[in-house]
Amino acid sequence: MSQSPSPRELANAVRFLAIDAVQKANSGHPGAPMGMADFAQVVWCDFMKHNPTNPKWWDRDRLVLSGGHASMLLYAMLHLSGYDLTLEDIKNFRQLGSRTAGHPEYGLAPGVETTTGPLGQGISNAVGFALAEKILAATYNRPGHTVVDHNTYCFLGDGDLMEGISHEACSLAGTLKLGKLIALWDDNRISIEGKVENWFADDTAKRFEAYGWHVVACVDGHDAEAVRQALEAAKAETERPSIICCRTEIGHGAPTVCGTERCHGSPLGAEETAGARKKLGWSHEPFTIPDELYAGWNLRDKGGKAEAAWNETWDAYAKSFPELADEFARRMRGELPANWAEESEKFIAGVQEAAEDKATRKASQAALNGYGPLLPELLGGSADLAGSNGTLWSGSKHVTPDDAAGNNMRYGVREFAMGAIMNALTLHGGFIPFGGTFMVFSDYMRNAMRLAALMEIRAIYVLTHDSIGVGEDGPTHQPVEHASSLRLMPNMDVWRPCDTVETAVAWKCAIESVKTPSSLLLSRQGLPFMQRDEQQIADIVKGGYILREAEGGKPEAILIATGSEVGLAMNAADALAAKGTKVRVVSMPCADRFDKQDAAYRNAVLPPAVEARVAVEAGSTGLWFKYVGSRGSVVGMDCYGESAPGKVLFEHFGFTVDNVVGAVESVLGE
Amino acid sequence: MSQSPSPRELANAVRFLAIDAVQKANSGHPGAPMGMADFAQVVWCDFMKHNPTNPKWWDRDRLVLSGGHASMLLYAMLHLSGYDLTLEDIKNFRQLGSRTAGHPEYGLAPGVETTTGPLGQGISNAVGFALAEKILAATYNRPGHTVVDHNTYCFLGDGDLMEGISHEACSLAGTLKLGKLIALWDDNRISIEGKVENWFADDTAKRFEAYGWHVVACVDGHDAEAVRQALEAAKAETERPSIICCRTEIGHGAPTVCGTERCHGSPLGAEETAGARKKLGWSHEPFTIPDELYAGWNLRDKGGKAEAAWNETWDAYAKSFPELADEFARRMRGELPANWAEESEKFIAGVQEAAEDKATRKASQAALNGYGPLLPELLGGSADLAGSNGTLWSGSKHVTPDDAAGNNMRYGVREFAMGAIMNALTLHGGFIPFGGTFMVFSDYMRNAMRLAALMEIRAIYVLTHDSIGVGEDGPTHQPVEHASSLRLMPNMDVWRPCDTVETAVAWKCAIESVKTPSSLLLSRQGLPFMQRDEQQIADIVKGGYILREAEGGKPEAILIATGSEVGLAMNAADALAAKGTKVRVVSMPCADRFDKQDAAYRNAVLPPAVEARVAVEAGSTGLWFKYVGSRGSVVGMDCYGESAPGKVLFEHFGFTVDNVVGAVESVLGE
Repeated sequence: MSQSPSPRELANAVRFLAIDAVQKANSGHPGAPMGMADFAQVVWCDFMKHNPTNPKWWDRDRLVLSGGHASMLLYAMLHLSGYDLTLEDIKNFRQLGSRTAGHPEYGLAPGVETTTGPLGQGISNAVGFALAEKILAATYNRPGHTVVDHNTYCFLGDGDLMEGISHEACSLAGTLKLGKLIALWDDNRISIEGKVENWFADDTAKRFEAYGWHVVACVDGHDAEAVRQALEAAKAETERPSIICCRTEIGHGAPTVCGTERCHGSPLGAEETAGARKKLGWSHEPFTIPDELYAGWNLRDKGGKAEAAWNETWDAYAKSFPELADEFARRMRGELPANWAEESEKFIAGVQEAAEDKATRKASQAALNGYGPLLPELLGGSADLAGSNGTLWSGSKHVTPDDAAGNNMRYGVREFAMGAIMNALTLHGGFIPFGGTFMVFSDYMRNAMRLAALMEIRAIYVLTHDSIGVGEDGPTHQPVEHASSLRLMPNMDVWRPCDTVETAVAWKCAIESVKTPSSLLLSRQGLPFMQRDEQQIADIVKGGYILREAEGGKPEAILIATGSEVGLAMNAADALAAKGTKVRVVSMPCADRFDKQDAAYRNAVLPPAVEARVAVEAGSTGLWFKYVGSRGSVVGMDCYGESAPGKVLFEHFGFTVDNVVGAVESVLGE
Repeated sequence: MSQSPSPRELANAVRFLAIDAVQKANSGHPGAPMGMADFAQVVWCDFMKHNPTNPKWWDRDRLVLSGGHASMLLYAMLHLSGYDLTLEDIKNFRQLGSRTAGHPEYGLAPGVETTTGPLGQGISNAVGFALAEKILAATYNRPGHTVVDHNTYCFLGDGDLMEGISHEACSLAGTLKLGKLIALWDDNRISIEGKVENWFADDTAKRFEAYGWHVVACVDGHDAEAVRQALEAAKAETERPSIICCRTEIGHGAPTVCGTERCHGSPLGAEETAGARKKLGWSHEPFTIPDELYAGWNLRDKGGKAEAAWNETWDAYAKSFPELADEFARRMRGELPANWAEESEKFIAGVQEAAEDKATRKASQAALNGYGPLLPELLGGSADLAGSNGTLWSGSKHVTPDDAAGNNMRYGVREFAMGAIMNALTLHGGFIPFGGTFMVFSDYMRNAMRLAALMEIRAIYVLTHDSIGVGEDGPTHQPVEHASSLRLMPNMDVWRPCDTVETAVAWKCAIESVKTPSSLLLSRQGLPFMQRDEQQIADIVKGGYILREAEGGKPEAILIATGSEVGLAMNAADALAAKGTKVRVVSMPCADRFDKQDAAYRNAVLPPAVEARVAVEAGSTGLWFKYVGSRGSVVGMDCYGESAPGKVLFEHFGFTVDNVVGAVESVLGE
């Protein structure tokens, strides 16, 4: 080996860490790291601005590995270049508790910017990172003070390109002129079922030209110099996002399985590995990297200098624009403003005072008008339903292709991309994203919501039109199973507030909820205001509380309700009281939070001795048996809705005082 | 008005039925029907082959209205051209129980080929219809006997084009050379938030060229002659699917709101309606169509002749190829083969006899090998995971661009399009589609599954890798909440079989289930075979049954389990028996079916008196409280998984005999 290793030699270090780690785990994906190693090395060592000793440096370039199955590519580069990821970590690839999970998981290894694996979401995250950069740059940079200035790189494959979300995100990236996004397509013409030609024959270069991207076509992804030239062209293009089409061979270096799907998802095996060692001239034992290669990969010095230079830029900025710098720094640290606690409490008190009847989607918009002025980090948006979702407020300013200094995104009819972009906005830092659509279309972005919950990051979903109250648009637009099915998602707070106050509290909780995304399920139709005392208001954050105590404080039965059915439950309780039956009404705006309260509180709200319980929700019944028990019942619906005015439908599906009264009397055995 | 009405006059009849119906309902979408009426009239009257008196004619052309909110366009054309849809129906637009729902709902009005509304799925359905035609034509046509020969038309809008699924489906349509698919893009440059230029700037013509489509660009969608020429070009192109880019004005004819989002989603109002009457020269009262226009629209005669001509073709075919004709007719009628009942029972008996330990995904593949030879209508496929999903069987033949006479689809990494295409295959007739992916990616196609359930049509989802048993790929690939959240979807049979026999029965039920789609949740890992007597085998179809009776037939406790946890429950029951505790084990492969049994059966399996119950499933716990009641408990997981070998994870998350034994003892108060 020469004094200074060649790019190919550097790349081979990645190849063999990947081969050997997959071999040792007896599980994993060697083909993709082997195919991508050459172009990845050029990006990582020669183009990316990053510092292994501070993976959280605000102005670092971000890299998203969209095909997360190629995780060993990333782990190898992190390890080799001096990040805090040891050879032991690599050897523990895919083992319980290790930082080197099968797919990159955010929060485990340093330098992993996002959790990837479900295809298509990585490239969409990358669009989100680039969008975050563009908005922050437009908002905070000042002439001569460029404190926000970084690129987003993304490696993606054929699978990502087939997924629909890649269309949504890349179309939007082109429209918004995200010129600092540089995607490298690992064009190996292989997916799991084999050569893609019979199921994926797109002219991808043309497709991206149609999106308004800068396309660098036909680059030999194994030729470092060709890749370098392509990257230089991409960096020089600042108006349009760039895609570099890297022709590669999957499993490059494996003697017999290269270029086929057979090296995709399982270890190469002893013989093929030995053959690869011979073919690539790699004489080292497994997990052994010569010092020269470590030296060639080491980016600590280079990265440290880059960050030091930026620190000078930052200091000068902070001196010239102290208030901007403070706000920017606060946002990047993820801290809420100092006056948040006090002002948000005040707002809620005012909402209680105003005592207005209102659709909760309108109450949500009012909450944005209350909280929005306090929070420049709030970045709103809707998948083309802003007017219906109530996501625009008095301080909203659209992000446009030529003026990104806004706080509202028009995502277009692209729910899934919206979800993935929101995740990246949070991961980048500096934003609390919220996004609106009709609740039924949460189906379209469900897996992005799941990734937010899995990553334990904040994101707020404004899901309006939350039941058959949608009315005439009919069953395709009426969520039935969605409230419960979102509740089943671990680490997702699902709020279904019943009035203006619960909505304001839900928003406050969602904003303060740093490690848990929140879904706000909001009504299309008007809902009555509920009277509460101070303790009741304070108890909303617990997710479930006594809204109406039974006469004499000794309930014979308990009604549990959420959202638009709380008013119905209250009316039914009154009707029962008139007949001499003592009923408590529990409002349960967030069952996820209620479940987390201690047993004393839960039993105080739902005393085990009171087994006559009825839950009321215009949706699936199944999950409610957890709360009403064997002797209770549920007034809900386990069928699809109909097209008719909302009021007619509530009546039609049995959401009436008579019916609820009957259900209570039935569980009481009357 | 002239003797023979002009195309524009014919189109105006549609416009005013739409305007007036929306006005009367005080709800709906007038803008889209007004914008599309001109090109729609040409397609419907002059190009489509259909017969109003037999909307189910097998060889009719299909039309899919992808933007279902424009439903009044379709209803108006159905009514005007002589379908069984009356003026009364039109007047009842969007009212409870009417056949003219807010969005077209399959099964209500005749001539509605599919339920549309959730954007992007309509164009994907259209791809599925065209695929169905191509496969059937390749399979059944013979030289000189062209019995399958129809086009699929689709009207789509900007919203459809923004949705990711449009990419998935249209990319596949281009690859597969679906030359008889003709899409007309309603290019009005408006979506709900306004002019799309700031959020949707694609060069759509170029995008579709990149997919390999034939693009007819820049057509004036209000000029009948221009549309006619474009349609002729599209029909002449038989190799590539065609898209005709129709420039239109939303709300064409409305004096002040035309060309803006203000006419999209609400009635025009009295003043604007009066203005439109004046502007378009329409002097008739609401819901009044002059006889000349009815005459101009009437397609009964033309359609009847077309069908009569086809009947001759059919008769000649049936004479020359009686067996082929019988099979084709049987498939189109949706009947299973005469020997199905007997042969499928035999297969199950053989599986019981073989008594093999096997992963249920392998058992599923074995079931395909058993049932496949009986069912030429089975059209399988996978979203690029055929090997893992076990969707290929000995008789599988790939559908390719140049040979469509196959029975297996390589959908590529396109779960959502797969779901929507499967829906259309069923709706077209002639197919029982099944499609595979990893269970966690059911999230991606969830709304297509929902539409199958809502439409009450058959589709079979092969969802493998159904728990943390996935192992090293980690939490992004491990479904946790999915089993329960699919169970919440109304009219979806969710099967999670525990061994080869339950898997074979689940497949049989899914195949026989004409009005309910089925999700088969299958393990990656091997599972033990369970011994059963004949009654137990017969009871599997009931969704839940006693797999192991307690000693002496008097259970102190009941264990309920599904899939991979049934073996665990059996072992725990044995361990408890050894300690003197009498435990019944209930296998619950399909809770949806169990819920539909009568109370006598349900109470026989789960006697109310036995309140010590523990459910065991490697997934969310919440829904199981419905079965275990207030005094029971659930061994499950309400958190995400980890990356590690599957066996390690089952242990880690508490799916052990000790833990299940402890749970039973705990509910028994021991």
